Amino acid sequence: MKLSEVAEALGGELVGDGSIEIVRAVHPAEAESAADLALAMDKRLAEALNGCKARAAVLAEGAAIPDGRLDGYILVKRPRYAMAGVTRLFDMPVHAPEGIHPSAVVEPDAEVAKDVRIGPFAYVASGAVVAAGTVLMSHVTVGAGARIGPDSLLHAGARIGERVEIGARAIIHQNASIGADGFSFVTPDAGAAEEARSGASDSVTAQNVVLTRINSIGTVIIGDDVEIGACTSIDRGTISATRIGNCTKIDDLVMIGHNVEIGENCMICGQAGIAGSTRIGSRVVLAGQVGVGDHLTIGDDVVVGARSAVGTNLPSRMVAIGTPAVARSKAAEIYMYTRRLKGLFDEVGRLKTRLTAIESGKKKG
Amino acid sequence: MKLSEVAEALGGELVGDGSIEIVRAVHPAEAESAADLALAMDKRLAEALNGCKARAAVLAEGAAIPDGRLDGYILVKRPRYAMAGVTRLFDMPVHAPEGIHPSAVVEPDAEVAKDVRIGPFAYVASGAVVAAGTVLMSHVTVGAGARIGPDSLLHAGARIGERVEIGARAIIHQNASIGADGFSFVTPDAGAAEEARSGASDSVTAQNVVLTRINSIGTVIIGDDVEIGACTSIDRGTISATRIGNCTKIDDLVMIGHNVEIGENCMICGQAGIAGSTRIGSRVVLAGQVGVGDHLTIGDDVVVGARSAVGTNLPSRMVAIGTPAVARSKAAEIYMYTRRLKGLFDEVGRLKTRLTAIESGKKKG
Amino acid sequence: MKLSEVAEALGGELVGDGSIEIVRAVHPAEAESAADLALAMDKRLAEALNGCKARAAVLAEGAAIPDGRLDGYILVKRPRYAMAGVTRLFDMPVHAPEGIHPSAVVEPDAEVAKDVRIGPFAYVASGAVVAAGTVLMSHVTVGAGARIGPDSLLHAGARIGERVEIGARAIIHQNASIGADGFSFVTPDAGAAEEARSGASDSVTAQNVVLTRINSIGTVIIGDDVEIGACTSIDRGTISATRIGNCTKIDDLVMIGHNVEIGENCMICGQAGIAGSTRIGSRVVLAGQVGVGDHLTIGDDVVVGARSAVGTNLPSRMVAIGTPAVARSKAAEIYMYTRRLKGLFDEVGRLKTRLTAIESGKKKG
Repeated sequence: MKLSEVAEALGGELVGDGSIEIVRAVHPAEAESAADLALAMDKRLAEALNGCKARAAVLAEGAAIPDGRLDGYILVKRPRYAMAGVTRLFDMPVHAPEGIHPSAVVEPDAEVAKDVRIGPFAYVASGAVVAAGTVLMSHVTVGAGARIGPDSLLHAGARIGERVEIGARAIIHQNASIGADGFSFVTPDAGAAEEARSGASDSVTAQNVVLTRINSIGTVIIGDDVEIGACTSIDRGTISATRIGNCTKIDDLVMIGHNVEIGENCMICGQAGIAGSTRIGSRVVLAGQVGVGDHLTIGDDVVVGARSAVGTNLPSRMVAIGTPAVARSKAAEIYMYTRRLKGLFDEVGRLKTRLTAIESGKKKG
Repeated sequence: MKLSEVAEALGGELVGDGSIEIVRAVHPAEAESAADLALAMDKRLAEALNGCKARAAVLAEGAAIPDGRLDGYILVKRPRYAMAGVTRLFDMPVHAPEGIHPSAVVEPDAEVAKDVRIGPFAYVASGAVVAAGTVLMSHVTVGAGARIGPDSLLHAGARIGERVEIGARAIIHQNASIGADGFSFVTPDAGAAEEARSGASDSVTAQNVVLTRINSIGTVIIGDDVEIGACTSIDRGTISATRIGNCTKIDDLVMIGHNVEIGENCMICGQAGIAGSTRIGSRVVLAGQVGVGDHLTIGDDVVVGARSAVGTNLPSRMVAIGTPAVARSKAAEIYMYTRRLKGLFDEVGRLKTRLTAIESGKKKG
Repeated sequence: MKLSEVAEALGGELVGDGSIEIVRAVHPAEAESAADLALAMDKRLAEALNGCKARAAVLAEGAAIPDGRLDGYILVKRPRYAMAGVTRLFDMPVHAPEGIHPSAVVEPDAEVAKDVRIGPFAYVASGAVVAAGTVLMSHVTVGAGARIGPDSLLHAGARIGERVEIGARAIIHQNASIGADGFSFVTPDAGAAEEARSGASDSVTAQNVVLTRINSIGTVIIGDDVEIGACTSIDRGTISATRIGNCTKIDDLVMIGHNVEIGENCMICGQAGIAGSTRIGSRVVLAGQVGVGDHLTIGDDVVVGARSAVGTNLPSRMVAIGTPAVARSKAAEIYMYTRRLKGLFDEVGRLKTRLTAIESGKKKG
């Protein structure tokens, strides 16, 4: 690909020789030849161009260009967005040969579109449907009656439970689990967990002697253009479905409990967890390691800061931080004053001394 | 199944036509025909019956029944407990054909009971024992010398390590790992972690230059009626066993460290973690994302609130909350006063001003 | 093995009969015969020797030896370090028959050293390289172009993504995922997450209507002697590599984000998470459930306490605790004063009353 073609694809400004042939896009420090395109979108990386073997680069508008080191370069307005374009141009698609690997097992009554590629040891169970253009890498399970939309990519070891429905263009990463049973148990009489939740005592009297299982007879329904991270677990609903809306992206090691409903265009970052029956709006961002309690409602466009624990409903557009999560300014206030507590204790001690001095002065007086 | 039979199975009160034939149990909003039983156990759902196609429902005692919309219904005392009954009556068991799938591998010296069902690409290693009535779904590993009790269900991709013992009626979800090695390393001399734990300094002087592995030559022993969630990891003991008691239920993405012992009837919720060598009593509830430190003892019937971090032993029946976890009332106190800190700083400022005024008045006086 | 040989291997002091033949090393409570070596390195366990069937034991120097119960014993200076030696002497290596299991699939253009042992349903993809002495247990995936160093052990269900490079003597546990794509999305204009991070408002105005994917065209490069826990996920870099240094040990359910670089000899404990592009020095210890934000730099020899959340760069050797993590003494200060807040509020109330009394006395006076 010519540098001029890269510039056009990125909507960037070409400076210098557009005819340079580009083979790879690389970090400036890893450039090995004149066919490498150095990605130097932030200031630190622009400096790294000085020792770099590449003769072409992508830089942010306004960056300092090292004198005479580059034969051509592309200036972009929004470097992070340009990264999406660059990695699309130089994508490294998975190695997935055409056809169905002879070791794979596809049950006779499964419906698999003609051009579906299926890797070694993948299993498509009875009644499952896999639409056109989809790739199942090695060791994937598509459970009985599950449906996978077109042009999806299921990485090695992804488990799609029975009757789960997944839309078009899904990307499911290694060892993710979709459709395990919800974690749902009940005691014949109100148990210790219920007592602890409803009361305010420092101890419980009830005992969970008999834990009776509530089976998960529901499923999971996932929209189009959803991505689900490695080792993430999305449980099925009790009688209805756990639902993930279109274009929502879920990172690794995330837990989505039973009956949860997530809207569209959300970003759920690594190790976040959403407990059962909670509803998450659209375009919500949950940063890493966030926890959201059960049976809550989180409005559209909410942003929850990293490691926060949400224990209440949150209105749309709120930026919530902390454990328990509160409005960002309140969290900042608590944080600031908490750090200054020693000073306050000392100050109160001094005031007390001064007050006592006045009081004793009066007595003496 | 007739509505009257459902009522009897649930121990509920039948009102109206008990002869209605029921095929499915559904959320009121998802009822499609008169053969659907609408589950409307909470007030919000009872209202949803108004637009519902079902002619039969389950409701909580005391619920408002919509006029004329139902031909028959069942009233239950404890709706959540009734859910257990309903989902058992209308359970959706896994699709697991009889016999051993031709693609599965069972080593000749493994002992597999006659009626065990084994899915595609499952592997039962040398010397393993799988008891009667158990189902191994696709891609399951039962390691060498491991033992699985009767009537258990191992979902796709569950990994049972070598020599691990699992009791009767276990349910192990997709991609769970039982019996990985414990995380146990030691330095020839006391290292940075030991120094940090034993001292009170803000920095360490020791360096972990050589990390020597302590091998895990123990195993994991799991009682009867235990459930283990998707992508959960339970590590083996160092020389003895990590132990999970009868009827304990463990959710997804939970980590149980080496040498941990958990009693009976516990509930360990999603993404909780228990560090090495800690003992958890019976009927303990750890809510979601709880952490419990290593070498601790947690008494029977303890309830730990969501996202709490336990750093000390906890006595039986305690309700503990916070990071570090303390008695619930103490946690509530800290929470309340922390939120009011700004007001306190302001108040102390005013007191100081008033005190200074008095003092300067006296001087002048 | 003779007791004297064990003593020599551990560098311990032999007392009594060194000719005792030892078959197993066990917890004192689990000793069944005179061929068992009771490991009683801590005081509690030394007491347990009293009811023990073993005739030989390992004890810490200075321990109280029960009268007449032992025919021979070994005294060690550093019991925890001795455990490494004992578990190495009595190791229980995995059951991995020689050769390639007939059910395994190795692509013709993969390079697999002669003595590599490959279990059932393992898959070595096109162009992958597996060096001598390595063991792939059942259901392992080695992706196209990946490289596994010599003498490594990959447990069942471990997923090694395409082009990932792993050094010598790696131990990768069950269902770990190496080389899933990074979680990296961008909006055409600055989105809600960027607005929330850069501003201080309690709400956002931007909406993440279009989430554009940044593909991960980089890889993961792992040094020698690295251990990676069960269900842990290490994502590949965007254009460069996510890197794990030699001798670093990573526990279960850990998440390592894209572009992260970790030095040598680190210990990353269970359920910890490191967000994208963060650099971790060498010999760093992250305790359980720690979170480290993105684009941070953590110095060498840093120790971060359990459940802490790191939101800033940390200098070398720092002991950091809390959420957000601060120097240990600051965290202890905040903790202590926070617990005493009720007393402070009460004290300030009393001071106010006394001050008012003085003020009203003056007025009256």
